[in-house]
Amino acid sequence: MSLKVYLAGPEVFLANAREQLDRKIALTRAAGLVPLSPGDLAIPPQPTKRQLGHAISDIDERLMNDADAIIANLTPYHGLSADTGTCFELGYMCARGKIAYGYTNVLADLRTRAISYYDGQIHVDAAGRLRGADGLMIEDVDMADNLMMQGGIERRGGQVIVHDAVPEALYTDTTAFEICLRLLSDRAAAKT
Amino acid sequence: MSLKVYLAGPEVFLANAREQLDRKIALTRAAGLVPLSPGDLAIPPQPTKRQLGHAISDIDERLMNDADAIIANLTPYHGLSADTGTCFELGYMCARGKIAYGYTNVLADLRTRAISYYDGQIHVDAAGRLRGADGLMIEDVDMADNLMMQGGIERRGGQVIVHDAVPEALYTDTTAFEICLRLLSDRAAAKT
Repeated sequence: MSLKVYLAGPEVFLANAREQLDRKIALTRAAGLVPLSPGDLAIPPQPTKRQLGHAISDIDERLMNDADAIIANLTPYHGLSADTGTCFELGYMCARGKIAYGYTNVLADLRTRAISYYDGQIHVDAAGRLRGADGLMIEDVDMADNLMMQGGIERRGGQVIVHDAVPEALYTDTTAFEICLRLLSDRAAAKT
Repeated sequence: MSLKVYLAGPEVFLANAREQLDRKIALTRAAGLVPLSPGDLAIPPQPTKRQLGHAISDIDERLMNDADAIIANLTPYHGLSADTGTCFELGYMCARGKIAYGYTNVLADLRTRAISYYDGQIHVDAAGRLRGADGLMIEDVDMADNLMMQGGIERRGGQVIVHDAVPEALYTDTTAFEICLRLLSDRAAAKT
């Protein structure tokens, strides 16, 4: 039986969302896996915006419940870190004991991005912790994003693949995604 | 039996983290609830930074497994949206069927913050979707943050409390947190 993979990421927000989701869906099938993608199911019309939000949340959770694994696109989005919806979904899948992989299209790790966010105005406090000019601690554990995410993935035997995409292809480059597909597919093959 | 509440949020990164975590712990106890807080347990020394990250991830997941509920501080952090570790934790707890509440100390909803992020350079596309100057869609479902989070909370009977804190108290104002405690405590009382 083929592994069902939930494809999490900020692609749903792209101007060419449908095209990019379809590319990822096709690549997943080509790897011998079954894609479950947000946007797969039509959302019935809702009386309010808030209820529309609930309907999408409900459908995406159902897709995740049905999936065996997640590949989370953790490329930074609207800030220092990954898309928050994707982070929620990664936590959701880790809690359900599903297989988890992640990737980012930005080479710089969280520490490096934070230093750049603070324009280098950082310091080490008395306890040896790296802090920004505003006093907030910079996570410094050799990871691409917050340790709950990369820790959640790696502690379950998954990997976070880091790729240096050109800025124009930040959300469309599928190099790292395809590596995740290969790793997942090999893992599924090893089990059978 | 008192409800055990996992206290998720970016407070761990504050310069006065211990003090702020202790304030939230004391408030939780005062509400008749049992606080489980990241930072409660000492992390044994680890050979590498990455392994330290794994050790913290492991301990925080154990605390969550032990908790009956989560209160997530979704105040924007290092960007448009909430702290990504907190989002992971909220998804984790929703997946486990725990009670979930959230709050933010920023009054402006995600749509309003996104419009400000784009300096008002936004447009409506042919399908009626709000988009930033870079073409990325602005989520417009009357919520404080990404719909997976607020949807996950509200669909499980929880609430996201929005409070307008002064900038100096963005991460330390506990007004909204205390409302969440009261709601949780009332809910626990109604069940017994």
